[in-house]
Parts: sequence; structure tokens; C-alpha cells
Amino acid sequence: MRVAVLRIGHRLVRDDRVTTHAALVSRAFGAEKIYMTGIDQSVQDTVAAVGRRWGGGFEVEIIEDWEAVARIWKKEGGKIAHLTMYGINIDDAVIDGMRKEDKVMVVIGAEKVPREVYDMADYNIAVGNQPHSEIAALAIFLDRLHGGRQFQKDFAGGKMRVVPTEKGKRVEQQQK
Amino acid sequence: MRVAVLRIGHRLVRDDRVTTHAALVSRAFGAEKIYMTGIDQSVQDTVAAVGRRWGGGFEVEIIEDWEAVARIWKKEGGKIAHLTMYGINIDDAVIDGMRKEDKVMVVIGAEKVPREVYDMADYNIAVGNQPHSEIAALAIFLDRLHGGRQFQKDFAGGKMRVVPTEKGKRVEQQQK
Repeated sequence: MRVAVLRIGHRLVRDDRVTTHAALVSRAFGAEKIYMTGIDQSVQDTVAAVGRRWGGGFEVEIIEDWEAVARIWKKEGGKIAHLTMYGINIDDAVIDGMRKEDKVMVVIGAEKVPREVYDMADYNIAVGNQPHSEIAALAIFLDRLHGGRQFQKDFAGGKMRVVPTEKGKRVEQQQK
Repeated sequence: MRVAVLRIGHRLVRDDRVTTHAALVSRAFGAEKIYMTGIDQSVQDTVAAVGRRWGGGFEVEIIEDWEAVARIWKKEGGKIAHLTMYGINIDDAVIDGMRKEDKVMVVIGAEKVPREVYDMADYNIAVGNQPHSEIAALAIFLDRLHGGRQFQKDFAGGKMRVVPTEKGKRVEQQQK
């Protein structure tokens, strides 16, 4: 399955760190790409630096027109899952059905999201019906979608690799 | 089980939104309290406003000395789980054992965390060994700890309640 994330409504500077978290979660939880509105070179640079160091082929694409991106995705047979506290709870939702899809785009918003997103989405999914964080919602959704297997993913081509350890930090330099 | 979250290393202003997300995730995922270092009234105010609107009895406590708080927690029989990408992967970790504990404190850091945290923790747990987000790590850890049941939790006493719906937003005013 190919998974991409679309983050809409990024507001400059104020949202930088939250957007960086959203991008890094997308990468670490098995998405291949994040589309972001708003030009924000610093987010792209941070995520690129993580990729050089820790491997994998994740991409950040800055876009102007999120509706066009979502429309093309659907036209190519992809499904859209919008994460919102107002949606159907993830426990009841059709995660099993979604696992059979070829392409899933996960839409997350920074605060208010236009009505069109709800209408365009194939699924409006609530990661709980309490307000919390689009970063947490994204993580839980991708974890359920991949059944936890994203943590076994091999991130090839990086310079470093963590050696899991009970106390402290162990990191291996990777051979080229 | 009683669950609290301890966030250490908050740096003023720059981390406000990320810290607010961490607090709201703690609340929505069944913790009863978050302890935060750094004086930051705006985070506390935002979380209090969410509680008045959406219910539940979650608390934010601003502390000066995180080591004292952690020490007292342990002295009272509580366990400490520190979330770090360098730890033992959550899939291999003793989540089943932790479910039997009376009190679990989850420690998350903003970027670098002092060495003492690793030593003091009963468990150093990696939510994947790739860099991503302490907000995502916290959400996944609490989701696994509660086996997903946090999303059925009743948040009593709020003014509003979401009525899960397939398109758009439905909210009920709660009777007092």
C-alpha cells in the first residue's frame, strides 16, 4: 500500500515545529510523502537532514492548491481519509477495508479545516472524539493502518542506526 | 491504573504549541495529569479551557524540580516509563507487565534529555527507533497501555459532546 499525508492550513513560523513533527511522524510511520501548503523551507530542510542521517526515501512536497492534489489522487483511484474529532471513531471505522486499498491519502489540518475536506473525503475518521493533536491522530491512524509493522521498516541508506538498549544511547555508523 | 505524564525541557514560547499538544494528548488518552517544567501560563489556560468545554478532570501542574517529582512518584510505588528512540522497541517491551502496575508516569522530553532520566526510568521505551515526535510517541504508548479503551472514556461535566458523523460536524450541548 502507498500512503501519503496531506497537511493543509499551515500558517507560517507559528506552526513550524508542529508541521515538522507531522512530517517526521509521516516518515517514521511508513508514509512515502507529505504534501504541505505554505512555503516553509525550514521544515523541508529539517526533514531532508533527518533522511540523510537516518535513511529512507521520504519526500516533502510544498504545494499551492491542496484541492487539485486531492482531486488527482482520487482520479488515480486513491482514497482519502480525513482525520477529525467529529468523524466516525477509528474503532468502528473501516480500517480493515482501508488496508486493502492501493493508495491512501491521510488529510490532517492545522486547526479549522474547510467544509470541502469533509465532503471530498472517503472517510472522516475520529481518533477519539476529544480535541487533542493532529500529530497524535496521524500516528494512531498510521499505526492501526499498518498494524504496528511500520516499526520494523528498514530505512536504507542512512548514516546511522539505533541499537535498541535498556539504558542510554547506542548508535551504529552504517557502512557504505 | 493511574497514569501521569512528565514533560521535561520545555523552552519558553518556542515550544508552546508542541507542549499544548502533549498536554491535550495526555488528557484525551486517559492520563490524569501532566507535570511540566517551565512556567507557561498560556499552555495551562488552553488546557483548562478545553476541560471546561469538553469535560473530564485533567490537571496541568507546573513544577520546578522534575527530579523531585519523579523521585516521590517512585517512592510511592509508581513506575517510570521514559519514551526515547534509543530504548527497547515498544513491540518487544513489557507493555503487558506495565498494565498490571498501579501507577505509571510517562516521561517525554523536548529534544535532548539528561542522562539521569535514562537511569531513573524503570523502562526506556522506543516507539520505533527513528526520530519523530514526542507527541506521537506519547499517543502510541498510551494507546497500547490502555489497549485502545481510552477512546471510550466518559469525560463528565463538559458543555459539549461530539456526535460522531460521516460528513461534517455534529455537537450536542450537554444538560447540566
